[in-house]
Amino acid sequence: MTSAPLHMEIEKEARTHQDSLTKPRGALGRLEDVACWFAARQGKVTPDPLKAHIAVFAADHGVVEEGVSAYPSVVTGEMVKNFARGGAAINVLARQCGASLSVVDVGVIPDLSNIEGIEHQKVRKGTANLLREAAMTPAECEAAISIGRSVAMRAIAAGSNLLIAGDMGIGNTTASACIICSCTGASPEMVVGFGTGIEHAARRHKIDVVKGALARVAGRPKSELLQHLGGLEIAAMAGFYLQAAESGVPVVIDGFIASAAALAARIIDPAASDWMLASHTSHENGHTLALAELGLSALIDFEMRLGEGSGAALIVPLLQSAIALHNGMATFESAGVTDKDG
Amino acid sequence: MTSAPLHMEIEKEARTHQDSLTKPRGALGRLEDVACWFAARQGKVTPDPLKAHIAVFAADHGVVEEGVSAYPSVVTGEMVKNFARGGAAINVLARQCGASLSVVDVGVIPDLSNIEGIEHQKVRKGTANLLREAAMTPAECEAAISIGRSVAMRAIAAGSNLLIAGDMGIGNTTASACIICSCTGASPEMVVGFGTGIEHAARRHKIDVVKGALARVAGRPKSELLQHLGGLEIAAMAGFYLQAAESGVPVVIDGFIASAAALAARIIDPAASDWMLASHTSHENGHTLALAELGLSALIDFEMRLGEGSGAALIVPLLQSAIALHNGMATFESAGVTDKDG
Repeated sequence: MTSAPLHMEIEKEARTHQDSLTKPRGALGRLEDVACWFAARQGKVTPDPLKAHIAVFAADHGVVEEGVSAYPSVVTGEMVKNFARGGAAINVLARQCGASLSVVDVGVIPDLSNIEGIEHQKVRKGTANLLREAAMTPAECEAAISIGRSVAMRAIAAGSNLLIAGDMGIGNTTASACIICSCTGASPEMVVGFGTGIEHAARRHKIDVVKGALARVAGRPKSELLQHLGGLEIAAMAGFYLQAAESGVPVVIDGFIASAAALAARIIDPAASDWMLASHTSHENGHTLALAELGLSALIDFEMRLGEGSGAALIVPLLQSAIALHNGMATFESAGVTDKDG
Repeated sequence: MTSAPLHMEIEKEARTHQDSLTKPRGALGRLEDVACWFAARQGKVTPDPLKAHIAVFAADHGVVEEGVSAYPSVVTGEMVKNFARGGAAINVLARQCGASLSVVDVGVIPDLSNIEGIEHQKVRKGTANLLREAAMTPAECEAAISIGRSVAMRAIAAGSNLLIAGDMGIGNTTASACIICSCTGASPEMVVGFGTGIEHAARRHKIDVVKGALARVAGRPKSELLQHLGGLEIAAMAGFYLQAAESGVPVVIDGFIASAAALAARIIDPAASDWMLASHTSHENGHTLALAELGLSALIDFEMRLGEGSGAALIVPLLQSAIALHNGMATFESAGVTDKDG
């Protein structure tokens, strides 16, 4: 499967429509671009309002045993329970933007089968330690990708026209840094950040872990990167993005982890990024490098570094406003306003 | 009257509350700052959701006869009619963020007394040409300030806890550039932009007009700047900001014109900017200089340059989300999530 084609002729019509609205041409800046971006993807000169679905994929990471995170792995499962009870940031933001939310256990270490309100799709209990060995087997990686695909497919079938993937996984900034370094060629020093709040010495150690992992996979084909360096939730997010692009449904990319997943998706389908809109610049080092590699430009910079899809969910009201302005403003002609060149 | 005092002890409590929420400390970046900013101003550790009122002040400018604008003065009145019918950008954005909206004619040239849905408070039919003479008499300037004050007072009495002032006035980027140059000491070359879309040669001419106006008022006290170089809508906005600060109600500052009005308000009460939150960085030259002078830092940069309060209205959902996260997230303790230092 490949990504759906864009409707470039519709985008052009949408631009012409923008220029007829009662404002100086271009005065709404990036809001105009956003509205036309959706026009090109929905194939409608006046795009439909957004009905967003957020899927948070959770999994643990074997590399945590190397001491790369400020929090222990147990927090992943605890946070999944917090998602299920509605107490996490992404729950609040989903309510704020009117999005539906699903939480998917693709590989959390503890048994969560008695937790209601989440999807139980555990592929394995956390990845292997990516410094020492492949994080997943090829079959496990494929399984995680398929889970992400099916979550996207169901959300689309239920009427969502905007998809957001969030992550929860203690240790996943290390896996993401490995993927971003591999895909951009940037050094671990440039990409590795402070994650959930490690100290400077711990960051030096984290850089060494990333270097070790990159050395371990040196010479391997790009198609093996996700399996070797990724996480189960990152693979699921990549599958989610691939399915969205194939189904012709836009996605909003969250921060550091999401951008790593987006880069992984692009290895499988280079056109997948045509369907991606970048939300925010994460405070985590290296995120801007990842976005540049994806050819994306973030809309806001709030110095956030939470994950869960929080940055992407936060900007949904801005995207809604862009479309509402595009569809709801009067034209120079209808309002009887003198145009500049009129 | 002077600005209301801030509740700094409440802000400290709000910070402590933020650090108890289920996320790495600081991971919500500027959203955390925003929530605590409102806590300090509402005097509540968990601030109330925002009930915004937007007031768009409209007036014409005598300096338009110098050829400083891409649009003729007639557009000011035409746009007021567009506001009254609900077809302008600010109408759409007010609906999107659930804000109430009032439109106030403080000095549009044509007679709009037969237009319903606007407030008729015309002080005079446009300002005098600020290049040649004072834009307003002292009494006219005071009258416009008072109108802004009374609009703010009524919105607060009606229950609004967040105020936004918008502008409509062909020629008002020239007046605003004069005020910003006067208050920051920056050169007209650094401050004058392309307004609603003038060409390079016209911008050169606009710079000369601003230089001429600044030369005309050289040596005059700061207290006369607004009267000499401002506009009726700018004076009304300054009054609106002053009243909000005195009443202890936060304002969101829009772009270039709003920042000039904010600087004018600060001449009258230097503490007024304690109650101001900057929304966006305008694409108009010199806006960042104005914000720096106000000690404010914009939350977003969407390359907008529309006015009407559009940038301020656009970010209201982000502010609501900041407060919703602050108030609605579970704590480490309530959710049973292991804290980093726990």
